[in-house]
Amino acid sequence: MGGSLARALRRLPAPPRVVGWSPDVGESLEALGAAALDEVADTAEEAAGAADLVVYATPLGAVLELLERHRARWRADAVVTDVASLKAPVVERVGALGVASGYVGSHPMVGGEGSGFAASREGLFRDATVWLASGTGTDDARRRLEAFWRALGARPRWSDPREHDRLMVRASHVPQVLSSALALALERAGVPRAELGPGGRDMTRLAASSPGMWRDLLGRSADRLAPALREVCAALEEIAVLLESGAVDDVAGLMEEGKTWARAGDGGGGGAERAGGAAAGPDEAVGGS
Amino acid sequence: MGGSLARALRRLPAPPRVVGWSPDVGESLEALGAAALDEVADTAEEAAGAADLVVYATPLGAVLELLERHRARWRADAVVTDVASLKAPVVERVGALGVASGYVGSHPMVGGEGSGFAASREGLFRDATVWLASGTGTDDARRRLEAFWRALGARPRWSDPREHDRLMVRASHVPQVLSSALALALERAGVPRAELGPGGRDMTRLAASSPGMWRDLLGRSADRLAPALREVCAALEEIAVLLESGAVDDVAGLMEEGKTWARAGDGGGGGAERAGGAAAGPDEAVGGS
Repeated sequence: MGGSLARALRRLPAPPRVVGWSPDVGESLEALGAAALDEVADTAEEAAGAADLVVYATPLGAVLELLERHRARWRADAVVTDVASLKAPVVERVGALGVASGYVGSHPMVGGEGSGFAASREGLFRDATVWLASGTGTDDARRRLEAFWRALGARPRWSDPREHDRLMVRASHVPQVLSSALALALERAGVPRAELGPGGRDMTRLAASSPGMWRDLLGRSADRLAPALREVCAALEEIAVLLESGAVDDVAGLMEEGKTWARAGDGGGGGAERAGGAAAGPDEAVGGS
Repeated sequence: MGGSLARALRRLPAPPRVVGWSPDVGESLEALGAAALDEVADTAEEAAGAADLVVYATPLGAVLELLERHRARWRADAVVTDVASLKAPVVERVGALGVASGYVGSHPMVGGEGSGFAASREGLFRDATVWLASGTGTDDARRRLEAFWRALGARPRWSDPREHDRLMVRASHVPQVLSSALALALERAGVPRAELGPGGRDMTRLAASSPGMWRDLLGRSADRLAPALREVCAALEEIAVLLESGAVDDVAGLMEEGKTWARAGDGGGGGAERAGGAAAGPDEAVGGS
């Protein structure tokens, strides 16, 4: 996501200076070569220390570590954010570290199964919901971060971090695990992915996501995620039992119920906050890998 | 699918005369208005009786009924096919009806959650795998049907109908039911689809498919489908248990396994039979709804 962010920033009418750093030097050079970055910092510390907006686009565990490692490095006026899809663990950490005033958490509802600069897309944030975690940051920091995302065409929505995380377990983590579970079941049954039709390929697309990124998220949401996975199992079992008893009209009835739900959400993006606010771009930003 | 077929036929270098019929008059007129059809027949019988290639693009139950109703109507030289995603029930029916020599079953691995002419796409069959059911049809009928699909840019693959159906339970029916089950679980948990990110939306796209079409298919595959759904449940339960015991590295290991499987299938379409054969278009075709 760091790559997409850098590319989107560079296409702003008045682009900020974008300094990047990645643990993978090849990624950094690729981003530089594609003119997505103005500069690659020598170290993560150097990048974090120079920016007025610091973005950690890295797995949750690394975010937590870097916040601790960098907390004495940030400029006094810097806004610090991350893009991990759980916000409570980060909010708790910045509280414990005593650096909550400069931090405001972000979670862009974007991206796919790809990772690395090669998977980056300049328009990734356009019209996308970006959750912002309430409860930390000064008024000024919150205003600046919201304006940052609006400048990229996104639709910021504020939420309590715990409420946000509760929603994400079902809205994001369950679909991911379901795709991986389907992939596993098909692999074990000896069905190669090339034999799937377009629907089956859609359903197993997420299975190609980075286990390294998801590991941290799933570990943190385990308490809520395990029961939520069993809710899906219960629906599957309900259908399996109906099929076995020949109650195919009842199965069609359940599908109709799912269809009604699916159709109601066809509008997409969610928030009502269509980009309409002022769009003041930041002067500078740092994207991790 | 009938609409996409009609549109694709009309774009051939030497388009056949395409006569259509649908139980929904509005659909027929829409197709006629969009120049996807040369003519709308007054009755299904009339359409079926005039064509040298008869295509039933309708749910499986209706295919079985129409084959029985129309069997005395087809021209002696007609090739009859359907596009239902199970082939053994149709092959058995034409055998029982004594009309197997003119029938060859098709199953294009295409389409999405949409239905009706509004969801039709001219290029739907390009590079798509189209399964053809072996065991029925004269040599001539089989050759003509294969040429028909090749002319539309599809990649025909022959299979024993029972083998084909066994594969489809996992490659097509399981992903469909999984999407519906996820939709149900999210609906019951009070999560609207608009709150999902792009991954969650992908995973619930199929849930908007027509229950009327799926009803017949799921009923016919129930014996194999129910256990196959439980294979996915078993994988979900395995992950849930690992999450509860904090074995998050093992979860990442399973995701890695799923990712490897998913990546191996990135090539897409399956068959090695890239359109290379002769492409002799049919003179005429009839699309059902």
